Amino acid sequence: MKRTALIGELNATHLGPVTLQGWVTRRRDLGGMIFFELRDRSGTVQVQVDPEQTEAFAQAGELRAEYVAEVTGTFSQRPEEQRKGGLADYEVLAAGVQILNRAKTPPFELDKGGDVSEDVRLRYRYLDLRRPEMQRNLMLRSRTWAAITEFMEAEGFINVETPMLTRSTPEGARDFLVPSRLNAGEFYALPQSPQLFKQMLMMAGYDRYYQMARCFRDEDLRSDRQPDFTQLDLEMSFVDQEDVLEMNSRLLQHIFRRVLDRELSLPLPRLTYQEAMDRYGSDKPDLRFEHAFSDVTDLFAGGEFKAFAGAEAVKVIAAPELTRKTIDELERIAKQNGAGGLAWLKRSGDSFTGGISKFVTGITPQLLERTGVEDGGTLLFTAGAWRTAVEALGAVRLSLRDLFDWTAGGPEFAPLWVTDFPQLDYDAESGTWTYMHHPFTSPHPEDAALFGTERQHEIRAQAYDLVMNGFEIGGGSVRIHNPETQRQMFRAIGLSDAEAQEKFGFFLEALDYGTPPHGGAAWGFDRLVMVLSGAPSIRDVIAFPKNNRGQDLMAGAPSPVADGQLEELGLKVQE
Amino acid sequence: MKRTALIGELNATHLGPVTLQGWVTRRRDLGGMIFFELRDRSGTVQVQVDPEQTEAFAQAGELRAEYVAEVTGTFSQRPEEQRKGGLADYEVLAAGVQILNRAKTPPFELDKGGDVSEDVRLRYRYLDLRRPEMQRNLMLRSRTWAAITEFMEAEGFINVETPMLTRSTPEGARDFLVPSRLNAGEFYALPQSPQLFKQMLMMAGYDRYYQMARCFRDEDLRSDRQPDFTQLDLEMSFVDQEDVLEMNSRLLQHIFRRVLDRELSLPLPRLTYQEAMDRYGSDKPDLRFEHAFSDVTDLFAGGEFKAFAGAEAVKVIAAPELTRKTIDELERIAKQNGAGGLAWLKRSGDSFTGGISKFVTGITPQLLERTGVEDGGTLLFTAGAWRTAVEALGAVRLSLRDLFDWTAGGPEFAPLWVTDFPQLDYDAESGTWTYMHHPFTSPHPEDAALFGTERQHEIRAQAYDLVMNGFEIGGGSVRIHNPETQRQMFRAIGLSDAEAQEKFGFFLEALDYGTPPHGGAAWGFDRLVMVLSGAPSIRDVIAFPKNNRGQDLMAGAPSPVADGQLEELGLKVQE
Repeated sequence: MKRTALIGELNATHLGPVTLQGWVTRRRDLGGMIFFELRDRSGTVQVQVDPEQTEAFAQAGELRAEYVAEVTGTFSQRPEEQRKGGLADYEVLAAGVQILNRAKTPPFELDKGGDVSEDVRLRYRYLDLRRPEMQRNLMLRSRTWAAITEFMEAEGFINVETPMLTRSTPEGARDFLVPSRLNAGEFYALPQSPQLFKQMLMMAGYDRYYQMARCFRDEDLRSDRQPDFTQLDLEMSFVDQEDVLEMNSRLLQHIFRRVLDRELSLPLPRLTYQEAMDRYGSDKPDLRFEHAFSDVTDLFAGGEFKAFAGAEAVKVIAAPELTRKTIDELERIAKQNGAGGLAWLKRSGDSFTGGISKFVTGITPQLLERTGVEDGGTLLFTAGAWRTAVEALGAVRLSLRDLFDWTAGGPEFAPLWVTDFPQLDYDAESGTWTYMHHPFTSPHPEDAALFGTERQHEIRAQAYDLVMNGFEIGGGSVRIHNPETQRQMFRAIGLSDAEAQEKFGFFLEALDYGTPPHGGAAWGFDRLVMVLSGAPSIRDVIAFPKNNRGQDLMAGAPSPVADGQLEELGLKVQE
Repeated sequence: MKRTALIGELNATHLGPVTLQGWVTRRRDLGGMIFFELRDRSGTVQVQVDPEQTEAFAQAGELRAEYVAEVTGTFSQRPEEQRKGGLADYEVLAAGVQILNRAKTPPFELDKGGDVSEDVRLRYRYLDLRRPEMQRNLMLRSRTWAAITEFMEAEGFINVETPMLTRSTPEGARDFLVPSRLNAGEFYALPQSPQLFKQMLMMAGYDRYYQMARCFRDEDLRSDRQPDFTQLDLEMSFVDQEDVLEMNSRLLQHIFRRVLDRELSLPLPRLTYQEAMDRYGSDKPDLRFEHAFSDVTDLFAGGEFKAFAGAEAVKVIAAPELTRKTIDELERIAKQNGAGGLAWLKRSGDSFTGGISKFVTGITPQLLERTGVEDGGTLLFTAGAWRTAVEALGAVRLSLRDLFDWTAGGPEFAPLWVTDFPQLDYDAESGTWTYMHHPFTSPHPEDAALFGTERQHEIRAQAYDLVMNGFEIGGGSVRIHNPETQRQMFRAIGLSDAEAQEKFGFFLEALDYGTPPHGGAAWGFDRLVMVLSGAPSIRDVIAFPKNNRGQDLMAGAPSPVADGQLEELGLKVQE
């Protein structure tokens, strides 16, 4: 017997005989009748069984929660006074009820899923995934994927799958390894990204490439990280940075239309890395609210407050009135993020009290003007090396957001581009230079002459991130297509020609055979879906995620394996 | 400078000034002019550089094969007598030529790629992939993927990604293992297929699921196998076999429309497993030509030709006239496929000569009538156990196809469904029963009573394969949704309840919580694209394939890894 429609599709045109299939919830016996709800992925409808329908009534009497059932009957309008709109205006008067499968009592109530421990939800994921909230998330994920495919195809991108079993390169994050049986003692690596392969596709003339690529990084897990993740990977030839930003902006616009039914106006706002850090203390600023920093370095320079007098940067953010306890808590966060402390002032009329107020009497008008702090409100300062000062205050800004619900009333989504990242990053601890984005990123042509000089930290990369609501949802760069520039870059990060050859020889060789100018981007698909759906965790938008120990609690992975399996691979587990 | 269009998009509307970018081929200096071709993924156009264009001429003089160049100039019609249709009717008269990148001399000539050893092609894959033939294959692959996505979305399927790091189950093929660092001594397995997860998505109420899934099997490689492959994986709830066949048939029809611009008429032909084996000696028969077997078991039964007299099956195929040498070669193939030999007859008028002719004088009219062999033609026989007899003659049939080009003049594509596979397979060597499809396949309800009886080999599965041109391009089954049937099935293949619990415990547990009737299919995407494109090897439709040793000759994978990497994993390579 075929069903008439999915339950959520039922409407006035279906009034009359129907056949429905789904899962049973909320069975109640009331006034001699049996009522239950029948649920499928699209919706839920009430079923009423009259005792005069002897057989149906007997079957309905056996129904328990999560039984699978088929109901035939009459799709009817409920009495006018009971109508609330939508499917709740209707009910099915059952003529037949057939149990298609029975169910044990679930270990948790599905409509209380949000309150159940995550371990239990993951252990019984097939039940957790029945919850409407999870179904909504996964359907939104599927729609987002489809919207991306639709757009990329319309734009002439070619979908190419790159290798899953590839070469381990001791750069960047740690690889997951896969022992080779046919080549004993040797290992594949699961790809951290298709970066080199997509660049080789440009060398091979494919012009526009995209792929929804599964990527793997064996890092210690945090709440928004999984050992594997999905990225929309794309690359374009004969383009400059503007072309890539423009295309990716339109892609986001298309996703908003198709998935959220919202219009996103373009061009997206842009901030340089320098501006984003200066104003918001983050290279992925949450712009659903403003509360930017003010720079007051000049006001304190050479002044009597010694801690600030010689600082490279003094930054301040204006907050509402704060208790001492809250200030202490915020100072703890500032210190966790590298600051020496968190100085403060409270505005009382046209002056400041508390905190460092005795040092600011001479600059009170300027502080009031630059920060616009409200009467009774608090100013919070960090000072020191520029990057530390802004990053620490950036963390304070996000804490204030959560404390005062600063996103309320603002836009639900605030996407922007952050551009002009530094090409190189100096690691003070090891005294070495490394890449900020990745070693194949092209510098701004006018900065390239700085390679190898003491000003090489000033080199700006043609690198950009797509940021939304404080999350980096994508990023990319124009790539180096000139073999000589690539060698300069490797030297700048301390790789000799011989080391570069050993690590990336096949790629450098490919670069010599006619490489077009190219650039691209990668979007963190899981994170994008998390932000679009408003889910609190990345695990809530992945069907079968790992927990924080990298375990699949349902399937029981990872697990020990048979000795024979290891023997075939020529491997031994160390005790 | 932006290009005007991709080269292949140029047409009469572009006459006038253009900017083009691409790769240089075939530079010739002729009559004081320089001619070269500029190529991108979409096409090739001739460029002519006049010495009066001093700067362009100087740049063009430096061009070599595979240089990347930008050409500005006038898109013009060639003289009428030189026009051959399409882009060859046009040329670009260059005003400017700019070298965007240089290229070393390629290690092989790209237009002779087909003749180059595959090792060289794989080593320099980024050059091999520039060949128009490879670009055509990969673009067809991309279009096929897009057509599948479009159809599945329109049909209400939800795209769900299943885990790549999952549990090793010592069933079926050999797993690729991935050592876990966070859980030392334990291993993930890369998925052989998403089978259990997709069934759990049905249990979770997703109703219709699909995924383009990367799958992994650590088998010894053959020419049409890769360690990893892509499958279109799909599953549907509340369906029977007819629903699945109907939907998948329409999907194939949609692919034909979108990718090949051909109309495929439905319903597709169907053969039961029994019929396919009986007539063509294969469960994936090539139906681009007929040449079916005739059954002549009854004609020889109890007769004087002792080798055939007691055989379970005697099968015959009619061939054209064959030399003794060819018959010997075909006999070798029959024997490789298990036959004791290959008996033969040559028709001469109304009688037979040669081979076993002295045994068939009494049945000549029947043999002539049943086989319809032409005068001078040859009959080839196998006899013995049914399956061996048909399979051996099936291999002979395919050899005859290749020898006599039997597919010429026939349809280019001959898709069909093969249905009613046996549920169980008896392995005579080990004396054990195993599953034919997989252990979650549902038997025909009317056959289920045979489980555990001596007739259990007669149980037909609700399993089906989609076959085209002699290749299995997909297959699937209605699944078991009744926990008791699942236990019967495990017992039938010799798994005790305890063993089943140990291997599939989490899945069996899930089955108990309200599983809907469901079924599905998986398509071998690489093989589908190979058949659609007419490529000779699966490696010709994969961008970066492995060779027969499982190696990526370009990237150099697999490779030894650093001791530290193994140490972190708690592993040691055995000497």
